[in-house]
Amino acid sequence: MIQIFTTGGTIDKVYFDANSEFEIGESLVPELLAESNIHTGYRLQGLLRKDSLEMNDKDRVLVREAVTSCDSHQILITHGTDTMAETAQALASLRHKTIVLTGAMQPARMRRSDSVFNIGFAWAALQLLPAGVYIAMNGEVFEAGAVRKNLKAQRFERT
Amino acid sequence: MIQIFTTGGTIDKVYFDANSEFEIGESLVPELLAESNIHTGYRLQGLLRKDSLEMNDKDRVLVREAVTSCDSHQILITHGTDTMAETAQALASLRHKTIVLTGAMQPARMRRSDSVFNIGFAWAALQLLPAGVYIAMNGEVFEAGAVRKNLKAQRFERT
Amino acid sequence: MIQIFTTGGTIDKVYFDANSEFEIGESLVPELLAESNIHTGYRLQGLLRKDSLEMNDKDRVLVREAVTSCDSHQILITHGTDTMAETAQALASLRHKTIVLTGAMQPARMRRSDSVFNIGFAWAALQLLPAGVYIAMNGEVFEAGAVRKNLKAQRFERT
Amino acid sequence: MIQIFTTGGTIDKVYFDANSEFEIGESLVPELLAESNIHTGYRLQGLLRKDSLEMNDKDRVLVREAVTSCDSHQILITHGTDTMAETAQALASLRHKTIVLTGAMQPARMRRSDSVFNIGFAWAALQLLPAGVYIAMNGEVFEAGAVRKNLKAQRFERT
Repeated sequence: MIQIFTTGGTIDKVYFDANSEFEIGESLVPELLAESNIHTGYRLQGLLRKDSLEMNDKDRVLVREAVTSCDSHQILITHGTDTMAETAQALASLRHKTIVLTGAMQPARMRRSDSVFNIGFAWAALQLLPAGVYIAMNGEVFEAGAVRKNLKAQRFERT
Repeated sequence: MIQIFTTGGTIDKVYFDANSEFEIGESLVPELLAESNIHTGYRLQGLLRKDSLEMNDKDRVLVREAVTSCDSHQILITHGTDTMAETAQALASLRHKTIVLTGAMQPARMRRSDSVFNIGFAWAALQLLPAGVYIAMNGEVFEAGAVRKNLKAQRFERT
Repeated sequence: MIQIFTTGGTIDKVYFDANSEFEIGESLVPELLAESNIHTGYRLQGLLRKDSLEMNDKDRVLVREAVTSCDSHQILITHGTDTMAETAQALASLRHKTIVLTGAMQPARMRRSDSVFNIGFAWAALQLLPAGVYIAMNGEVFEAGAVRKNLKAQRFERT
Repeated sequence: MIQIFTTGGTIDKVYFDANSEFEIGESLVPELLAESNIHTGYRLQGLLRKDSLEMNDKDRVLVREAVTSCDSHQILITHGTDTMAETAQALASLRHKTIVLTGAMQPARMRRSDSVFNIGFAWAALQLLPAGVYIAMNGEVFEAGAVRKNLKAQRFERT
């Protein structure tokens, strides 16, 4: 049983304007999985709905506790890209589960987005990687502690 | 360097009617990869544009020769689903490369399709699996020779 | 109150293969209208689910009777393009209602389709045109009896 | 010859985050028209790229001058929704051309948007309405000076 935790980030952004109240919507992951013929074998729990620039230490403790207290050994976390590397680092000492963080540069609600590819990529990584903490972005797997977002290039790279 | 071979199948189907001449179009894989921030690191070659029900032994020899003669060790083959298991079987004796077959139940040109997820899933499988021949469909990895398409359920399953 | 009658055609085509039973699905028109903030003010009735090449005189009598017996004065008919001009001709003597036929060259379920534009275009035409029978395609309004589909150019033109 | 002027607004919004520089992109209108089989018969000129809340009197003078000085008699203006009614009012004294303002509640770059329907709807309105200034939104035609955006209902209504 795969456990999905959602924390917000670009992947779940909705369109908002000056008059909007919310900018992060319901996760589209269940809908994307259903379109890909995946209807069972996972549970999803929403932990946060934050732009990852606004995530703080308390939020990371919450994520860590959710990961350790759940009984699944395969955990997918959807997360904003700006501090994804920091959250991966904060989980890096957890050594008994396969934990994969992913997200998107463009919201899943856009016509053109990396969201679906990234979810598919992370779904395989989760099943094939040994226990550890990883980031799965731009078609590559990175280990926690050895990865950063290159803001200018808009992609993840090894440190 | 990842080598992609396209052979046709639902993933590349275009809309056609009684007056249309072609029913399988250019592969959308390069466009889907670009939307997912993957611009380099692969080569793509079109081998066939066939509904996989129309693939014959000669076609499978062609695919096998393309796989053996290319110098890449990671090979992604997009393929129609109806005989994907047969082509995987025909390649199963190749033991020195990681060969992943994928495709789609709904064309990549549809609003709702499993194509992008499947390409993302196969992209990770290709990088993480040991040498061997695999089918990557409906969020699962299957070994060649131990998989079939369940027509009624419209999904792949272990035999 | 706008009355919509659906008769099938490309606009409602779903993806089908050699193993599929149906090739024309539920009309997407209510979903497309809802996305465009139109939730009330219309009724929809499915009359046929046919490729318009298969429509016969009996089918056209059915459409004509549906148009005459309904109490609305604004009638939108979604229809396959190949014989849309013939059905318009068969309705041309009806002079007390505004009747607009539209459809699509690419199914509404495709990523890229003329369906939504055509429905929007027809929606305005229906409200602004005087009583009569019209075809609304490729951004133009044509009068019944003076229009044909140019198969090669894949567009409608005046005769 | 239809003249299109773009001024920005939600219809042309791109996804932007705290690190983005631009929030309004190239107009998608030519791409949307091409998908709808409309390749000729119009010219497009970008006047502004503004959220309409930021449009001022000077901007409206610019729009008015563009409308009066162009030699077309059918003018489509894409515009943000928040002050679309004000710009329509500022143009209302122009009596010799058919001027239609439209826009969108959701960006054209979203999977689900009213953009394509609205462009299609406005395209027909432009051809069928007499000279005057109109807003074409949510499947209805409104005359300049007698329309407002209902922020809560997220739709236009008569005043």
